[in-house]
Amino acid sequence: MVIAYDGTHYSGWQIQPHSLSIQEKLEQTLQIFLREKVRIIGSGRTDAGVHALGQVAHFSCSQELNLERFLWSANSLLPPDIRVVTVDAVTDAFHAQHSAIGKEYHYHLSLGVVQEPFHRFYSYHIPFELNIDLLKQAAQMFIGTHDFTSFANAAHTGSAAKNPIRTLRRLDVVEMEQQQVRLEFEGDGFLYKMVRNITGTLLEVASGKKPLSAISAIRESRDRRQAPQAVPPQGLFLIKVSYP
Amino acid sequence: MVIAYDGTHYSGWQIQPHSLSIQEKLEQTLQIFLREKVRIIGSGRTDAGVHALGQVAHFSCSQELNLERFLWSANSLLPPDIRVVTVDAVTDAFHAQHSAIGKEYHYHLSLGVVQEPFHRFYSYHIPFELNIDLLKQAAQMFIGTHDFTSFANAAHTGSAAKNPIRTLRRLDVVEMEQQQVRLEFEGDGFLYKMVRNITGTLLEVASGKKPLSAISAIRESRDRRQAPQAVPPQGLFLIKVSYP
Repeated sequence: MVIAYDGTHYSGWQIQPHSLSIQEKLEQTLQIFLREKVRIIGSGRTDAGVHALGQVAHFSCSQELNLERFLWSANSLLPPDIRVVTVDAVTDAFHAQHSAIGKEYHYHLSLGVVQEPFHRFYSYHIPFELNIDLLKQAAQMFIGTHDFTSFANAAHTGSAAKNPIRTLRRLDVVEMEQQQVRLEFEGDGFLYKMVRNITGTLLEVASGKKPLSAISAIRESRDRRQAPQAVPPQGLFLIKVSYP
Repeated sequence: MVIAYDGTHYSGWQIQPHSLSIQEKLEQTLQIFLREKVRIIGSGRTDAGVHALGQVAHFSCSQELNLERFLWSANSLLPPDIRVVTVDAVTDAFHAQHSAIGKEYHYHLSLGVVQEPFHRFYSYHIPFELNIDLLKQAAQMFIGTHDFTSFANAAHTGSAAKNPIRTLRRLDVVEMEQQQVRLEFEGDGFLYKMVRNITGTLLEVASGKKPLSAISAIRESRDRRQAPQAVPPQGLFLIKVSYP
């Protein structure tokens, strides 16, 4: 399944006690019309407040599915802030997380003194001056294959943190209408909070608080405490997960 | 003041008993820091669920205002779904409604079988097939100076309905990314529900339910009952109000 969701009202992708996650809402909903319990495995988790246009998840079930009817049933029963965009049959070899070879994330910034009300849950408001040229230069310095330890938080679960080497293929700064800026990240995979940590560092450089040269120094320190704070979740979108 | 608001959680612009309007929320908020009661007059009302990027409103008060500080105080105290975008001093001759010489509205449509969750409060989902060329041809037939009685609901208040002649200067169909279509209406003024009624008729033509020729027949009937249903409020945005 390719899944889109507005993460505003959820505790994130992954099931956890005492709060409602996207994964749990999907499992509950599918159980209603499949009449069997299914375990949904996502390509990776997203934090509370983070959104997705192209999260990918798989599940196994004991019945043959009519895919068109599945899509219709799922979207009829899901709340409108979660949508199953497409559904396809896969072989047993497919695993939403382990088979993934690439991901794309976008992070949205709202510039200007006053943030448009429609962006309040979908972008991070930067009321201070930002040098867009500097932002673009700083972004280029993250591209390539690097040890991203300084830009990764300790993950509570998962094996991702064991190998901190990642390849960032693209980090584009796209200026949009209405003082919106979109940071487009594309890579083979991302460590926990890596996009939000990198964005935090980009903003420190683009606002003049840190020099451009700080980026490689922070990266080479391999120490999370050297990097600036992560930016908040509401600007982050999981756009696409790629498979071979 | 130029005001932007997300109309999702309000009963509309205009103050009414037993529900919260944008106008009331603004008056309440200004009173807090101005320490006097002000009456806010908008360029016109918007219905429950309708949004604005550029509503204009004026008020009089007994004190000299520091405009920069006014903007900061208003946006600090207003809920994040209402923003004062800019504020300027005007003469006593200025009236937000009576001085207006033009308005621009946009109506957003989401095409495709599944609506992206981020558009659920900000566009109207059309899951059926739409002929965009026909939509564009139909739109052109509304342009010009006409009696728009067939596309106006009876207004509960105001003098607008007394003269049903309006000039629609522009009605553009803009195809955007992610299967979004934006209808851009620009004219000297709009009757009550005129944009939503015209859009309802455009959709009947673009989906093949009515022929192109029905448009002039409906218009010339000067009978609201001849025109199709209005589209729902959440796709509608008041973009701009023009003054001499």
